[in-house]
Amino acid sequence: MGDGTENGAGSRGGTGGGTGESLDREIDALRADTPGCARVAHLNNAGAALAPRPVIDAVAEHFTLENTIGGYEAAEVNAAAIDRFYDATARLIGARADEIAYVENATRAWDMAFYAIPFAEGDRILTTTNEYSSNAIAYQQVAEAKGVRVEVVPDAPDGTLSLDALEAELRKGGVRLVSLNHIPTHNGLVNPAAAVGRLCREHGVLYLLDACQSVGQLAVDVREIGCDMLSATGRKFLRGPRGTGFLYVRREVVTTLEPPFLDLQAAEWKAPDGYEPRGDARRFETWERYVAGQIGLGVAAGYAADLGTARIEERVTRLAARLRAALAERPGTTVLDRGARPSGIVTFTVDGHDPGEIKKAAREAGVNVNVTNPAGHGYDPRAVPAAVRASVHYYNTEEELDRLLSALPNR
Amino acid sequence: MGDGTENGAGSRGGTGGGTGESLDREIDALRADTPGCARVAHLNNAGAALAPRPVIDAVAEHFTLENTIGGYEAAEVNAAAIDRFYDATARLIGARADEIAYVENATRAWDMAFYAIPFAEGDRILTTTNEYSSNAIAYQQVAEAKGVRVEVVPDAPDGTLSLDALEAELRKGGVRLVSLNHIPTHNGLVNPAAAVGRLCREHGVLYLLDACQSVGQLAVDVREIGCDMLSATGRKFLRGPRGTGFLYVRREVVTTLEPPFLDLQAAEWKAPDGYEPRGDARRFETWERYVAGQIGLGVAAGYAADLGTARIEERVTRLAARLRAALAERPGTTVLDRGARPSGIVTFTVDGHDPGEIKKAAREAGVNVNVTNPAGHGYDPRAVPAAVRASVHYYNTEEELDRLLSALPNR
Repeated sequence: MGDGTENGAGSRGGTGGGTGESLDREIDALRADTPGCARVAHLNNAGAALAPRPVIDAVAEHFTLENTIGGYEAAEVNAAAIDRFYDATARLIGARADEIAYVENATRAWDMAFYAIPFAEGDRILTTTNEYSSNAIAYQQVAEAKGVRVEVVPDAPDGTLSLDALEAELRKGGVRLVSLNHIPTHNGLVNPAAAVGRLCREHGVLYLLDACQSVGQLAVDVREIGCDMLSATGRKFLRGPRGTGFLYVRREVVTTLEPPFLDLQAAEWKAPDGYEPRGDARRFETWERYVAGQIGLGVAAGYAADLGTARIEERVTRLAARLRAALAERPGTTVLDRGARPSGIVTFTVDGHDPGEIKKAAREAGVNVNVTNPAGHGYDPRAVPAAVRASVHYYNTEEELDRLLSALPNR
Repeated sequence: MGDGTENGAGSRGGTGGGTGESLDREIDALRADTPGCARVAHLNNAGAALAPRPVIDAVAEHFTLENTIGGYEAAEVNAAAIDRFYDATARLIGARADEIAYVENATRAWDMAFYAIPFAEGDRILTTTNEYSSNAIAYQQVAEAKGVRVEVVPDAPDGTLSLDALEAELRKGGVRLVSLNHIPTHNGLVNPAAAVGRLCREHGVLYLLDACQSVGQLAVDVREIGCDMLSATGRKFLRGPRGTGFLYVRREVVTTLEPPFLDLQAAEWKAPDGYEPRGDARRFETWERYVAGQIGLGVAAGYAADLGTARIEERVTRLAARLRAALAERPGTTVLDRGARPSGIVTFTVDGHDPGEIKKAAREAGVNVNVTNPAGHGYDPRAVPAAVRASVHYYNTEEELDRLLSALPNR
């Protein structure tokens, strides 16, 4: 059975471009291309990352154009750039352009997929202990409305999803959906997404992956993972604008899903009483949108794909591992991340010190970290009420990690 | 019975600030405050208006801050500006701040309200001939899913909704919802929103008003109109950013509506299997959002409220009336707008000339207009396949209207 390492760069070449060489050699240029790097050591990439200059410029230029010649008129001028979003995003995750929908944010992307599933009474939904609470709320809403059962698959000893337990549950039958976070919000663990995909295909079960925290930091390839639907956000590791996200829906399942909302973008109106949803993933879109954000998200996706997601993953996870190792050496400091090969999200506590206090001290030292919110812990019995979350990106440096370490309180 | 005039400025003082004097006296300053005015005669305000400088600056400054210090960190710094959105929007439409939700766009705002209504089989939905097709698709989707009946109330002789016909339908009973566009997308008519509100209250029926085209150009006051829910967009007459909108839900009905989607912003998670939606309108929100857009929308709402919506309405409708009169004098030109007092949206055709060709000729003369899309006509038996739509804002001038007239082809 697989573990967190299967999604690692070591297992394959990764999607996107870039050479096989480490990003280390380009770090100065990458930082120079990121205006925020001159200002702060940003270790809050699981919140919202610093955008690179091409993304910033694309958004700002379109916004300025809208206010100079008009919003619709600007969209006509930049039609090609708007459309490039689909190609760039598809390229980033190994999908086809007609399998991509632009959605306002990852939550709505996930909602549009989840609430489109035609559940019947008694259907089972399988998820993990570390599921995000927003998703848990949605499960419960549908459970109450449709008589669906929500079941939490136990963890493996290493703290990620137990594939043995998942397989046992799938064998019992009646499972309509397996739905999980690739990486939860409050822990650096990486769920074994591709192994889950193999099990889902074997049992003919729909598979929805919340890749909110993984797209942009790991080499995420939808064919390799084998998910039917994948939701992602622009603002986190993908380095796109806030207020943007996307949904991938595998071509073969698109028409089996009825979007919970439909408008003239998503469906054709056949007066007086008919409508026909689109045949591609854009049936999950709405016509009205943050157009400058869509352009910027496309640029961000292309930027990551050009760098190469395998190279990004290699540097991110290496820096995070270095930070974890240094934290583990500190007396009174507890690293909470689980799994054999955790992600760029590093979570920890320091005995006797409130995580909020540590966040504040780090801020004063010019380092951004965040505090995990207990409200987001889902069903996780191992979650602590609050922890410091330092989330590393490839544009961070070892010096920045050291700056965080220096700002931490002694026990 | 009322007609379109009841929502006119003449009937009351209007919400928001501003003196009783016409905006004419401030037109130079208003135009100087709108960078796009120097570049184009923008008569596509029903598509997306030109933003004023304070809106542009607010969005651009927050976006820059996000990319300088981090997205979450910027939101902390600008927390007060983010929060001002609720107060400014409430002030603009005569609501309370806890009755306002920030939603990504008007379509989603409308969706969040409409799909939250607990319809039962056999419930009747009453709407108008000139309903927007996206809404019609939603009615049909719910009709098929829940056995609800969608009924189109006939027009009055003047082409707006017939209040007599509406009242007759309400008297038959079984109506769960009255839902209409204040102003449709393809015609300048203004439906008698407040008279509809009185009838809905009299019959104890829910009332959803799609104010996508009216907020920002008319003096829209939710108490006076008496609607339970109102959806609006930022990008049109309100002069806010694309990718922003809001939903008003009357305090007394909020908790009777279960939002179709819920996340951690909208509801509290009570592990392992409970959730509690918020008690205010923010139960219709999602946590992830276009934060810079929210700030900008708040500034736009405050800008309009400060000018005074009655003064805006007066100048907009006067300029539009002038354009209509000039068009009506042209041989072979047909003005299509209906009702006793149409809005700032002017629709027309010129015999023997395709509306697309006219749009192109106007563009070459430095004038932006749009073409109505037949796909958006809903149930309207009077709609022509396509027409030119020239939508006037208060920052337009008589000279700009003349420029459009000069660019029109002779028959």
